[in-house]
Amino acid sequence: MTFAERLDDPGLTIAELGEQGLLRLLKSYCPTDVVGDDAALLTPAPGQQLVVTTDVLVDGVHFSDRTTPPHSAGWRAVAANLSDLAAMGATGLGITVGLSLPPNCPVFWVEQLYRGMADCLAIYGIPIVGGDVCRAEQRAIAITALGQVEPQFAWQRKTAQVGDAIVVTGSHGGARAGLALLLGEPLDIFHGADSGERSLQDELIRQHQYPRPRLDWVESFRAFVRRGRSGEHWVTAMDSSDGLGDAIFQLCRASGVGAKVFADAIPMPQALRSLSDQALNCVLYGGEDFELVLCMEPQLAAQICGEPSFTAVTIGQITANSEVLLLQEGGIRRRLDLESGFQHFS
Amino acid sequence: MTFAERLDDPGLTIAELGEQGLLRLLKSYCPTDVVGDDAALLTPAPGQQLVVTTDVLVDGVHFSDRTTPPHSAGWRAVAANLSDLAAMGATGLGITVGLSLPPNCPVFWVEQLYRGMADCLAIYGIPIVGGDVCRAEQRAIAITALGQVEPQFAWQRKTAQVGDAIVVTGSHGGARAGLALLLGEPLDIFHGADSGERSLQDELIRQHQYPRPRLDWVESFRAFVRRGRSGEHWVTAMDSSDGLGDAIFQLCRASGVGAKVFADAIPMPQALRSLSDQALNCVLYGGEDFELVLCMEPQLAAQICGEPSFTAVTIGQITANSEVLLLQEGGIRRRLDLESGFQHFS
Repeated sequence: MTFAERLDDPGLTIAELGEQGLLRLLKSYCPTDVVGDDAALLTPAPGQQLVVTTDVLVDGVHFSDRTTPPHSAGWRAVAANLSDLAAMGATGLGITVGLSLPPNCPVFWVEQLYRGMADCLAIYGIPIVGGDVCRAEQRAIAITALGQVEPQFAWQRKTAQVGDAIVVTGSHGGARAGLALLLGEPLDIFHGADSGERSLQDELIRQHQYPRPRLDWVESFRAFVRRGRSGEHWVTAMDSSDGLGDAIFQLCRASGVGAKVFADAIPMPQALRSLSDQALNCVLYGGEDFELVLCMEPQLAAQICGEPSFTAVTIGQITANSEVLLLQEGGIRRRLDLESGFQHFS
Repeated sequence: MTFAERLDDPGLTIAELGEQGLLRLLKSYCPTDVVGDDAALLTPAPGQQLVVTTDVLVDGVHFSDRTTPPHSAGWRAVAANLSDLAAMGATGLGITVGLSLPPNCPVFWVEQLYRGMADCLAIYGIPIVGGDVCRAEQRAIAITALGQVEPQFAWQRKTAQVGDAIVVTGSHGGARAGLALLLGEPLDIFHGADSGERSLQDELIRQHQYPRPRLDWVESFRAFVRRGRSGEHWVTAMDSSDGLGDAIFQLCRASGVGAKVFADAIPMPQALRSLSDQALNCVLYGGEDFELVLCMEPQLAAQICGEPSFTAVTIGQITANSEVLLLQEGGIRRRLDLESGFQHFS
């Protein structure tokens, strides 16, 4: 039986394939010129700073067979890391993958996981440059993503200024609402099961399973600035991996400022627009949409948001006091804080 | 109660400290200028290639409370990764740490783990530049180490030439013998418990718990070459993390060559010098000594091994056939193969 034929057996486990076979399978997802030594070699462009970020995803915490087919688990693990690169204004150089697997894990699961990672990476032309695999009781994926950025263009969290516009990419809350659907959690935003609702539900599930990190947005922004449509102004940024509300709060805390955010200006999936308390929780604290939250001068924000090619909307403003207020219909709907976000160990 | 006073409580768990408190504790081990954003920024020296390697260490597989106090677990996790940088001929830039922890894990354990990592890193002046922490059923540490190397000096595995000398640093087999002692495995090399044996045993345990990666050796080698004692010759290298025998076999396979190795020339702890089958297994396949195995021209090997400042010994030679033979007293003691090494999933 050939190696490829062995892999076709859907019941084959990691223990049966053996460590050498597993390594051979995983290496087939890496460029041949970077694997085979104790470490991988990469060549950053001259004058660029290196950007590095790590995320660990654990079975039952960040993904599960119930909500996340392995292809989607791989995609999301990559998306989470690339989103951190995007939040720094960087472009991607490569990722490493540290995989923990129980011996009875199906080889099929691992293969689909890697295909999901490779499919997400392929959009941005980023290679898997190395990794490690070891035995564990629980499946886990530790990814480190490497990127590069011109030093003067590296975005941080602590540079927001009073008067800056708060700009967001994409749409918020869909990933969490999709997860709720997958988990069978009751959602007050759906009442029946007509075909219109089913199509909205499918879209929410897609947003949970296949989020798109915003490296493309960063490139468009750089190109916009290079074309001379605007001087490079200072941008403060973070991704919305722990929720839009958490991101705004963290940006404000790091910069020593406050904010007012207009609930009705936040872009969100149609299904959440009722802005019921439950829908608002998805939008503010659902997380894992992997969009960007940026603070910039209002003039630049107006230019960016006015360009049809940018998915970007101004949703609020940085203020001098330290409160982060969500406003709706002229009043305060909520005061945002840190504790409402996702807590790993509670 | 102050934050520091809370940490003094030896019974405090991660769940009681909470995620924000845990992050505050872990960030205290990072330079203040690199943490606080979605990713860390590093500045490689101009013209250097980036070197990246990942290792995952799991409780019960790579360390355990029985054999590895948390300070040692942290030290060894760092040593394993820095050793991979050394095997590429690189110097260190920084590491990221992805930590998986059960909620009932004592904060004390995490603090000791980080102290162990920091103590090993401090020898080489390498910072912790980022990381992630998440809930899991089993403790695990995923480290990615970043280094740099001048492109023409990056060591690989596939460049060994027929006639090259095989040179090793340090001493081999001690880490595995120390682990056996910690596990209470019977060792035929010890017979009684006199004070002489106890001191040898303590040394083996130290070699298991506190291995020294060979970044210092790489720096000495570069300095030696720069001082003009030798032209830079081509060096092929790998570390002995999976055992000396495994390293030699892998180097030979990658380079399409064979080797003969003289058992009596291998540097090893005094306790293993009987070279009983059990002692030989420790030396060849014990692993985790984190020494370097290098192939180089015999003339360079003679110069290096003749310098008192280098802990380096020639133990064999690269040959034209594909067999890897361990010779003793003029005969073949063993043929080395891949299957004798550590298998994660068997």
